[in-house]
Amino acid sequence: MTDTPHRRGADRTEVIMRTTLELGQEIGYAKLSIEAVAARAGAGKHTIYRRWSSKGALLLDSLLSLHESDLDYPDTGDIVADLREQIHAAVDLIGRPPFGPLYQALVGEAQYDPRVAAALNERFIAPQTDKTVARLKKAQDQGQLASGFDLDLAMAILSGPLYFRFLITQEPLTHEYVDRILDALFVGMGPHPQP
Amino acid sequence: MTDTPHRRGADRTEVIMRTTLELGQEIGYAKLSIEAVAARAGAGKHTIYRRWSSKGALLLDSLLSLHESDLDYPDTGDIVADLREQIHAAVDLIGRPPFGPLYQALVGEAQYDPRVAAALNERFIAPQTDKTVARLKKAQDQGQLASGFDLDLAMAILSGPLYFRFLITQEPLTHEYVDRILDALFVGMGPHPQP
Repeated sequence: MTDTPHRRGADRTEVIMRTTLELGQEIGYAKLSIEAVAARAGAGKHTIYRRWSSKGALLLDSLLSLHESDLDYPDTGDIVADLREQIHAAVDLIGRPPFGPLYQALVGEAQYDPRVAAALNERFIAPQTDKTVARLKKAQDQGQLASGFDLDLAMAILSGPLYFRFLITQEPLTHEYVDRILDALFVGMGPHPQP
Repeated sequence: MTDTPHRRGADRTEVIMRTTLELGQEIGYAKLSIEAVAARAGAGKHTIYRRWSSKGALLLDSLLSLHESDLDYPDTGDIVADLREQIHAAVDLIGRPPFGPLYQALVGEAQYDPRVAAALNERFIAPQTDKTVARLKKAQDQGQLASGFDLDLAMAILSGPLYFRFLITQEPLTHEYVDRILDALFVGMGPHPQP
Protein backbone atom coordinates (compact mmCIF):
# COMPACT_ATOMS: atom_id res chain seq x y z
CA MET A 1 0.00 0.00 0.00
CA THR A 2 1.57 3.27 -1.06
CA ASP A 3 1.67 6.18 1.31
CA THR A 4 -0.37 8.56 -0.84
CA PRO A 5 -2.09 11.64 0.63
CA HIS A 6 -5.39 9.80 0.19
CA ARG A 7 -4.10 6.84 2.16
CA ARG A 8 -2.75 9.08 4.90
CA GLY A 9 -6.21 10.66 5.20
CA ALA A 10 -7.81 7.23 5.52
CA ASP A 11 -5.27 6.24 8.18
CA ARG A 12 -5.98 9.40 10.14
CA THR A 13 -9.73 8.80 9.92
CA GLU A 14 -9.23 5.29 11.23
CA VAL A 15 -7.03 6.48 14.09
CA ILE A 16 -9.69 9.00 15.09
CA MET A 17 -12.42 6.36 15.05
CA ARG A 18 -10.37 3.83 17.02
CA THR A 19 -9.50 6.53 19.55
CA THR A 20 -13.18 7.43 19.87
CA LEU A 21 -14.09 3.85 20.76
CA GLU A 22 -11.16 3.42 23.17
CA LEU A 23 -11.85 6.66 24.96
CA GLY A 24 -15.61 6.09 24.95
CA GLN A 25 -15.13 2.73 26.63
CA GLU A 26 -12.77 4.24 29.20
CA ILE A 27 -14.77 7.27 30.26
CA GLY A 28 -18.30 6.65 28.99
CA TYR A 29 -20.45 8.54 26.52
CA ALA A 30 -21.41 11.40 28.84
CA LYS A 31 -17.79 12.46 29.36
CA LEU A 32 -16.64 11.80 25.81
CA SER A 33 -15.87 14.98 23.86
CA ILE A 34 -14.53 15.74 20.41
CA GLU A 35 -11.80 17.81 22.10
CA ALA A 36 -10.63 14.82 24.14
CA VAL A 37 -10.65 12.54 21.08
CA ALA A 38 -8.65 15.13 19.11
CA ALA A 39 -6.07 15.46 21.89
CA ARG A 40 -5.50 11.73 22.26
CA ALA A 41 -5.54 11.03 18.52
CA GLY A 42 -3.08 13.88 17.88
CA ALA A 43 -5.54 15.40 15.42
CA GLY A 44 -6.91 18.92 15.10
CA LYS A 45 -10.37 19.52 16.54
CA HIS A 46 -11.39 21.14 13.24
CA THR A 47 -10.26 18.08 11.31
CA ILE A 48 -12.81 16.07 13.27
CA TYR A 49 -15.59 18.66 13.03
CA ARG A 50 -15.10 18.89 9.25
CA ARG A 51 -16.14 15.26 8.99
CA TRP A 52 -18.47 14.75 11.97
CA SER A 53 -20.99 17.32 13.16
CA SER A 54 -21.34 15.95 16.71
CA LYS A 55 -19.86 13.38 19.04
CA GLY A 56 -22.93 11.24 18.39
CA ALA A 57 -22.18 11.15 14.67
CA LEU A 58 -18.50 10.43 15.37
CA LEU A 59 -19.27 7.59 17.78
CA LEU A 60 -21.81 6.03 15.46
CA ASP A 61 -19.40 6.13 12.52
CA SER A 62 -16.65 4.70 14.70
CA LEU A 63 -18.83 1.81 15.84
CA LEU A 64 -20.03 1.03 12.36
CA SER A 65 -17.11 1.75 10.07
CA LEU A 66 -14.86 -0.55 12.04
CA HIS A 67 -17.43 -3.35 12.27
CA GLU A 68 -19.85 -2.87 9.41
CA SER A 69 -19.04 -6.15 7.66
CA ASP A 70 -19.88 -8.05 10.88
CA LEU A 71 -23.51 -7.12 10.26
CA ASP A 72 -23.87 -8.46 6.72
CA TYR A 73 -26.38 -11.26 6.19
CA PRO A 74 -25.14 -14.71 5.34
CA ASP A 75 -27.02 -16.48 2.54
CA THR A 76 -27.03 -20.21 3.11
CA GLY A 77 -30.47 -20.60 1.54
CA ASP A 78 -32.13 -21.07 4.95
CA ILE A 79 -33.76 -17.77 5.95
CA VAL A 80 -34.33 -18.62 9.61
CA ALA A 81 -30.74 -19.79 10.09
CA ASP A 82 -29.41 -16.72 8.28
CA LEU A 83 -31.52 -14.28 10.30
CA ARG A 84 -30.49 -16.03 13.47
CA GLU A 85 -26.79 -15.77 12.62
CA GLN A 86 -27.00 -12.11 11.62
CA ILE A 87 -29.04 -11.08 14.66
CA HIS A 88 -26.76 -13.01 17.02
CA ALA A 89 -23.84 -11.03 15.56
CA ALA A 90 -25.76 -7.76 15.85
CA VAL A 91 -26.66 -8.25 19.52
CA ASP A 92 -23.11 -9.43 20.29
CA LEU A 93 -21.78 -6.19 18.78
CA ILE A 94 -24.19 -3.46 19.80
CA GLY A 95 -26.19 -5.01 22.63
CA ARG A 96 -23.32 -5.89 24.98
CA PRO A 97 -20.12 -4.48 26.42
CA PRO A 98 -17.81 -3.11 25.22
CA PHE A 99 -19.98 -1.27 22.67
CA GLY A 100 -23.41 -1.86 24.23
CA PRO A 101 -23.32 0.95 26.81
CA LEU A 102 -22.03 3.41 24.19
CA TYR A 103 -24.75 2.44 21.73
CA GLN A 104 -27.38 2.67 24.47
CA ALA A 105 -26.21 6.18 25.39
CA LEU A 106 -26.24 7.14 21.71
CA VAL A 107 -29.86 6.03 21.32
CA GLY A 108 -30.63 7.92 24.54
CA GLU A 109 -29.15 11.09 23.02
CA ALA A 110 -31.17 10.52 19.85
CA GLN A 111 -34.26 11.22 21.99
CA TYR A 112 -33.05 14.81 22.55
CA ASP A 113 -30.85 15.63 19.58
CA PRO A 114 -32.41 15.36 16.11
CA ARG A 115 -28.95 15.36 14.51
CA VAL A 116 -28.01 12.21 16.40
CA ALA A 117 -31.34 10.61 15.49
CA ALA A 118 -30.78 11.51 11.82
CA ALA A 119 -27.24 10.11 11.85
CA LEU A 120 -28.43 6.91 13.53
CA ASN A 121 -31.06 6.41 10.86
CA GLU A 122 -28.95 7.37 7.87
CA ARG A 123 -25.77 5.58 8.89
CA PHE A 124 -27.16 2.46 10.54
CA ILE A 125 -30.91 1.85 10.50
CA ALA A 126 -31.59 2.58 6.81
CA PRO A 127 -28.69 0.47 5.46
CA GLN A 128 -29.55 -2.41 7.82
CA THR A 129 -33.20 -2.15 6.76
CA ASP A 130 -32.18 -2.36 3.10
CA LYS A 131 -30.03 -5.44 3.74
CA THR A 132 -32.80 -7.08 5.77
CA VAL A 133 -35.47 -6.44 3.16
CA ALA A 134 -33.20 -7.70 0.36
CA ARG A 135 -32.48 -10.96 2.22
CA LEU A 136 -36.18 -11.44 3.11
CA LYS A 137 -37.33 -10.64 -0.42
CA LYS A 138 -35.13 -13.42 -1.73
CA ALA A 139 -36.56 -15.80 0.89
CA GLN A 140 -40.07 -14.73 -0.06
CA ASP A 141 -39.33 -15.46 -3.72
CA GLN A 142 -38.09 -18.90 -2.65
CA GLY A 143 -41.25 -19.63 -0.66
CA GLN A 144 -39.49 -19.46 2.75
CA LEU A 145 -41.47 -16.45 3.94
CA ALA A 146 -45.25 -15.86 3.99
CA SER A 147 -46.09 -14.56 0.52
CA GLY A 148 -48.20 -11.73 1.94
CA PHE A 149 -45.68 -10.65 4.57
CA ASP A 150 -45.28 -6.86 4.47
CA LEU A 151 -41.55 -6.36 3.94
CA ASP A 152 -41.81 -2.67 4.92
CA LEU A 153 -42.58 -3.85 8.45
CA ALA A 154 -39.74 -6.38 8.61
CA MET A 155 -37.16 -4.21 10.38
CA ALA A 156 -39.64 -3.04 13.03
CA ILE A 157 -40.96 -6.54 13.67
CA LEU A 158 -37.55 -8.22 13.80
CA SER A 159 -35.59 -5.60 15.70
CA GLY A 160 -38.39 -4.01 17.76
CA PRO A 161 -38.44 -6.79 20.38
CA LEU A 162 -34.65 -6.47 20.70
CA TYR A 163 -34.78 -2.71 21.24
CA PHE A 164 -37.64 -3.20 23.71
CA ARG A 165 -35.38 -5.39 25.85
CA PHE A 166 -32.28 -3.27 25.28
CA LEU A 167 -33.84 0.14 26.03
CA ILE A 168 -36.94 -0.52 28.12
CA THR A 169 -36.65 -3.61 30.33
CA GLN A 170 -32.85 -3.38 30.03
CA GLU A 171 -32.32 -7.11 30.44
CA PRO A 172 -29.41 -8.84 28.66
CA LEU A 173 -29.81 -9.61 24.95
CA THR A 174 -29.01 -13.30 24.78
CA HIS A 175 -28.89 -15.62 21.78
CA GLU A 176 -31.64 -17.64 23.44
CA TYR A 177 -33.91 -14.58 23.50
CA VAL A 178 -33.21 -13.93 19.81
CA ASP A 179 -34.07 -17.55 18.98
CA ARG A 180 -37.34 -17.46 20.93
CA ILE A 181 -38.39 -14.22 19.21
CA LEU A 182 -37.61 -15.62 15.75
CA ASP A 183 -39.55 -18.81 16.50
CA ALA A 184 -42.57 -16.83 17.68
CA LEU A 185 -42.50 -14.41 14.72
CA PHE A 186 -42.26 -17.17 12.13
CA VAL A 187 -45.05 -19.22 13.69
CA GLY A 188 -47.28 -16.19 14.30
CA MET A 189 -49.71 -15.38 17.09
CA GLY A 190 -52.87 -16.51 15.34
CA PRO A 191 -54.44 -19.91 15.99
CA HIS A 192 -53.48 -22.62 13.52
CA PRO A 193 -56.01 -24.71 11.64
CA GLN A 194 -56.53 -28.16 13.14
CA PRO A 195 -54.77 -30.84 11.10
CA MET B 1 -66.75 13.27 49.56
CA THR B 2 -65.67 14.44 53.02
CA ASP B 3 -62.69 16.69 53.45
CA THR B 4 -60.65 14.31 55.58
CA PRO B 5 -56.89 14.69 55.99
CA HIS B 6 -56.50 11.65 53.74
CA ARG B 7 -58.57 13.30 51.04
CA ARG B 8 -56.63 16.56 51.31
CA GLY B 9 -53.39 14.56 50.82
CA ALA B 10 -54.85 12.92 47.72
CA ASP B 11 -55.92 16.35 46.38
CA ARG B 12 -52.45 17.76 46.92
CA THR B 13 -50.87 14.76 45.17
CA GLU B 14 -53.20 15.28 42.23
CA VAL B 15 -52.42 19.00 42.05
CA ILE B 16 -48.70 18.22 41.99
CA MET B 17 -49.13 15.68 39.19
CA ARG B 18 -51.34 17.95 37.09
CA THR B 19 -48.86 20.78 37.57
CA THR B 20 -46.02 18.47 36.47
CA LEU B 21 -47.80 17.67 33.19
CA GLU B 22 -48.77 21.31 32.52
CA LEU B 23 -45.30 22.62 33.22
CA GLY B 24 -43.64 19.75 31.35
CA GLN B 25 -45.70 20.53 28.27
CA GLU B 26 -44.88 24.23 28.53
CA ILE B 27 -41.14 24.06 29.02
CA GLY B 28 -40.14 20.52 28.03
CA TYR B 29 -38.55 17.71 29.98
CA ALA B 30 -35.00 19.09 29.98
CA LYS B 31 -36.01 22.29 31.76
CA LEU B 32 -38.55 20.69 34.09
CA SER B 33 -37.43 20.59 37.73
CA ILE B 34 -38.98 19.49 40.98
CA GLU B 35 -38.30 22.98 42.34
CA ALA B 36 -40.33 24.58 39.55
CA VAL B 37 -43.20 22.13 40.03
CA ALA B 38 -43.20 22.81 43.77
CA ALA B 39 -43.28 26.58 43.23
CA ARG B 40 -46.16 26.48 40.80
CA ALA B 41 -48.15 23.88 42.74
CA GLY B 42 -47.69 25.81 45.98
CA ALA B 43 -46.19 22.72 47.59
CA GLY B 44 -42.98 22.21 49.52
CA LYS B 45 -40.04 20.73 47.61
CA HIS B 46 -39.61 18.16 50.36
CA THR B 47 -43.24 17.12 50.09
CA ILE B 48 -42.52 16.14 46.50
CA TYR B 49 -39.19 14.46 47.23
CA ARG B 50 -40.79 12.40 50.01
CA ARG B 51 -42.98 10.75 47.41
CA TRP B 52 -40.88 10.89 44.21
CA SER B 53 -37.13 10.33 44.10
CA SER B 54 -36.53 12.13 40.80
CA LYS B 55 -38.29 14.23 38.20
CA GLY B 56 -38.43 11.12 35.99
CA ALA B 57 -40.38 9.23 38.65
CA LEU B 58 -42.66 12.24 39.20
CA LEU B 59 -43.36 12.69 35.50
CA LEU B 60 -44.03 9.00 34.96
CA ASP B 61 -46.45 8.88 37.87
CA SER B 62 -48.16 12.03 36.63
CA LEU B 63 -48.61 10.60 33.16
CA LEU B 64 -49.91 7.30 34.41
CA SER B 65 -51.91 8.07 37.53
CA LEU B 66 -54.06 10.56 35.67
CA HIS B 67 -54.61 8.29 32.66
CA GLU B 68 -54.06 4.74 33.84
CA SER B 69 -57.60 3.57 33.17
CA ASP B 70 -57.26 4.67 29.54
CA LEU B 71 -54.82 1.80 29.09
CA ASP B 72 -56.99 -1.04 30.36
CA TYR B 73 -57.88 -3.78 27.90
CA PRO B 74 -61.44 -4.10 26.71
CA ASP B 75 -62.81 -7.65 26.62
CA THR B 76 -65.30 -8.02 23.82
CA GLY B 77 -64.32 -11.64 23.22
CA ASP B 78 -62.38 -10.75 20.04
CA ILE B 79 -58.68 -10.63 20.90
CA VAL B 80 -57.52 -8.84 17.75
CA ALA B 81 -60.17 -6.12 18.12
CA ASP B 82 -59.37 -5.72 21.80
CA LEU B 83 -55.62 -5.49 21.25
CA ARG B 84 -56.20 -2.99 18.47
CA GLU B 85 -58.39 -0.80 20.65
CA GLN B 86 -55.99 -0.86 23.60
CA ILE B 87 -52.90 -0.18 21.48
CA HIS B 88 -54.62 2.65 19.61
CA ALA B 89 -55.37 4.22 23.01
CA ALA B 90 -51.79 3.66 24.17
CA VAL B 91 -50.20 5.29 21.12
CA ASP B 92 -52.71 8.15 21.28
CA LEU B 93 -51.70 8.79 24.88
CA ILE B 94 -47.95 8.22 25.05
CA GLY B 95 -46.86 8.27 21.42
CA ARG B 96 -48.13 11.74 20.44
CA PRO B 97 -48.31 15.29 21.69
CA PRO B 98 -49.04 16.50 24.30
CA PHE B 99 -47.51 13.62 26.27
CA GLY B 100 -45.43 12.00 23.52
CA PRO B 101 -42.40 14.30 23.71
CA LEU B 102 -42.35 14.03 27.52
CA TYR B 103 -42.54 10.25 27.40
CA GLN B 104 -39.83 10.14 24.74
CA ALA B 105 -37.53 12.30 26.90
CA LEU B 106 -38.27 10.07 29.87
CA VAL B 107 -37.24 6.95 27.98
CA GLY B 108 -34.15 8.85 26.81
CA GLU B 109 -33.24 9.58 30.43
CA ALA B 110 -33.80 5.91 31.31
CA GLN B 111 -30.73 5.19 29.15
CA TYR B 112 -28.55 7.15 31.60
CA ASP B 113 -30.35 6.99 34.94
CA PRO B 114 -31.07 3.54 36.38
CA ARG B 115 -33.63 5.04 38.80
CA VAL B 116 -35.70 6.32 35.89
CA ALA B 117 -35.40 2.96 34.13
CA ALA B 118 -36.49 1.17 37.30
CA ALA B 119 -39.46 3.52 37.78
CA LEU B 120 -40.48 3.09 34.14
CA ASN B 121 -40.46 -0.68 34.49
CA GLU B 122 -42.12 -0.88 37.89
CA ARG B 123 -44.77 1.75 37.34
CA PHE B 124 -45.64 1.20 33.69
CA ILE B 125 -44.05 -1.70 31.84
CA ALA B 126 -44.60 -4.45 34.42
CA PRO B 127 -48.29 -3.63 35.09
CA GLN B 128 -48.98 -3.29 31.33
CA THR B 129 -47.20 -6.60 30.75
CA ASP B 130 -49.38 -8.29 33.39
CA LYS B 131 -52.55 -6.89 31.81
CA THR B 132 -51.44 -7.93 28.35
CA VAL B 133 -50.54 -11.45 29.39
CA ALA B 134 -53.83 -11.86 31.28
CA ARG B 135 -55.87 -10.77 28.25
CA LEU B 136 -53.83 -12.99 25.88
CA LYS B 137 -54.01 -15.98 28.23
CA LYS B 138 -57.79 -15.77 28.14
CA ALA B 139 -57.70 -15.58 24.34
CA GLN B 140 -55.37 -18.57 24.25
CA ASP B 141 -57.76 -20.56 26.43
CA GLN B 142 -60.55 -19.63 24.01
CA GLY B 143 -58.54 -20.80 20.98
CA GLN B 144 -58.03 -17.27 19.59
CA LEU B 145 -54.25 -17.34 19.99
CA ALA B 146 -51.73 -19.94 18.84
CA SER B 147 -51.68 -22.57 21.59
CA GLY B 148 -47.89 -22.62 21.67
CA PHE B 149 -47.43 -18.85 21.68
CA ASP B 150 -44.92 -17.89 24.37
CA LEU B 151 -46.80 -15.39 26.52
CA ASP B 152 -43.58 -14.21 28.18
CA LEU B 153 -42.62 -12.72 24.81
CA ALA B 154 -45.96 -11.03 24.21
CA MET B 155 -45.09 -7.56 25.48
CA ALA B 156 -41.80 -7.43 23.55
CA ILE B 157 -43.40 -8.67 20.34
CA LEU B 158 -46.45 -6.42 20.52
CA SER B 159 -44.86 -3.22 21.77
CA GLY B 160 -41.32 -3.63 20.36
CA PRO B 161 -42.30 -2.50 16.84
CA LEU B 162 -44.03 0.54 18.35
CA TYR B 163 -40.98 1.53 20.39
CA PHE B 164 -38.78 0.96 17.33
CA ARG B 165 -40.77 3.57 15.42
CA PHE B 166 -41.16 5.90 18.41
CA LEU B 167 -37.50 5.91 19.50
CA ILE B 168 -35.44 4.87 16.49
CA THR B 169 -36.98 5.91 13.17
CA GLN B 170 -39.05 8.55 15.03
CA GLU B 171 -41.91 8.46 12.54
CA PRO B 172 -45.49 9.08 13.74
CA LEU B 173 -47.30 6.24 15.47
CA THR B 174 -50.52 5.97 13.50
CA HIS B 175 -53.48 3.66 13.98
CA GLU B 176 -52.79 2.32 10.50
CA TYR B 177 -49.26 1.31 11.55
CA VAL B 178 -50.64 -0.45 14.63
CA ASP B 179 -53.14 -2.35 12.49
CA ARG B 180 -50.51 -3.45 9.98
CA ILE B 181 -48.24 -4.69 12.78
CA LEU B 182 -51.07 -6.66 14.42
CA ASP B 183 -52.05 -8.22 11.10
CA ALA B 184 -48.46 -9.27 10.41
CA LEU B 185 -47.91 -10.66 13.93
CA PHE B 186 -51.09 -12.72 13.91
CA VAL B 187 -50.45 -14.16 10.45
CA GLY B 188 -46.75 -14.79 11.14
CA MET B 189 -43.71 -14.61 8.89
CA GLY B 190 -43.51 -18.30 8.05
CA PRO B 191 -44.87 -19.71 4.78
CA HIS B 192 -48.38 -21.11 4.99
CA PRO B 193 -49.30 -24.58 3.80
CA GLN B 194 -50.95 -24.62 0.39
CA PRO B 195 -54.70 -25.18 0.63
